[in-house]
Amino acid sequence: MDVKYINPFLEGTMEVLRTMAGVELAPERPFLKKKAGALGDISGVIGLTGEVNGSLSVTFSFALVREAMRTMLGVVISGIDDQVEDAVGELTNMISGQARKGLAEEGLHLKAALPSVVTGTGHAICHISPRQVLVIPFNSSHGQVVVEVSLDS
Amino acid sequence: MDVKYINPFLEGTMEVLRTMAGVELAPERPFLKKKAGALGDISGVIGLTGEVNGSLSVTFSFALVREAMRTMLGVVISGIDDQVEDAVGELTNMISGQARKGLAEEGLHLKAALPSVVTGTGHAICHISPRQVLVIPFNSSHGQVVVEVSLDS
Repeated sequence: MDVKYINPFLEGTMEVLRTMAGVELAPERPFLKKKAGALGDISGVIGLTGEVNGSLSVTFSFALVREAMRTMLGVVISGIDDQVEDAVGELTNMISGQARKGLAEEGLHLKAALPSVVTGTGHAICHISPRQVLVIPFNSSHGQVVVEVSLDS
Repeated sequence: MDVKYINPFLEGTMEVLRTMAGVELAPERPFLKKKAGALGDISGVIGLTGEVNGSLSVTFSFALVREAMRTMLGVVISGIDDQVEDAVGELTNMISGQARKGLAEEGLHLKAALPSVVTGTGHAICHISPRQVLVIPFNSSHGQVVVEVSLDS
């Protein structure tokens, strides 16, 4: 994957979490992996199509989702329910939107499918792609976020 | 979701599993659900874009995937590894392809993103959609397959 496509995902994720959840993310060094598989508490997954096809996942720690729910909706959650799944779907949608805006500025125009949200302790998401998967880990005072991007070019 | 869009997914799934895995699926009655969440051993998820946006997931029992691996690749598996994930991604891709071919005949032209594969015992996939999610359960002598489709129209 072209390195110029990394920043839109990195900055898009930081921007959405800052604006929506009031969480400052500290990005760690992105890396490429043949088979990525972030382990987390809840993940949003969204498909991308256009000049290239791809998929994007955002895996959240429970602590970060709890903080996002507090900031976004003023609710204190003790577990994952429909409302949390909707919020994670919406955050994933927004991260995809910000990233696609940045990608468009680099000349890559993509469309996004509807998001899905995956739950279940110890779930893993594997992006099936002819290329390597870009992994961008972030840390915060509310735990980890891992973004994984696969583009077939 | 328009009922005329059900058959392409139903028949596409049966066709792909019959041809590729040698498994005859018996479809059960499809239903609509606000929040679907199939529980299974391994799922393929693929995003759809076009005149409408959507997402499709196919959740397999381990027994069915084991049979598919035996038929497709002549291997006997005892667990889920990279090769199994690739096969489930490919089956999901093919089901999406067959379904999209059928949808195109109904006048609905969609593109597919790259598939992701979700593993982890007890994982659940929730389609975030403004509309209800179509659930198509299937049975077979090798266990269950559940197809879930969300289209935002």
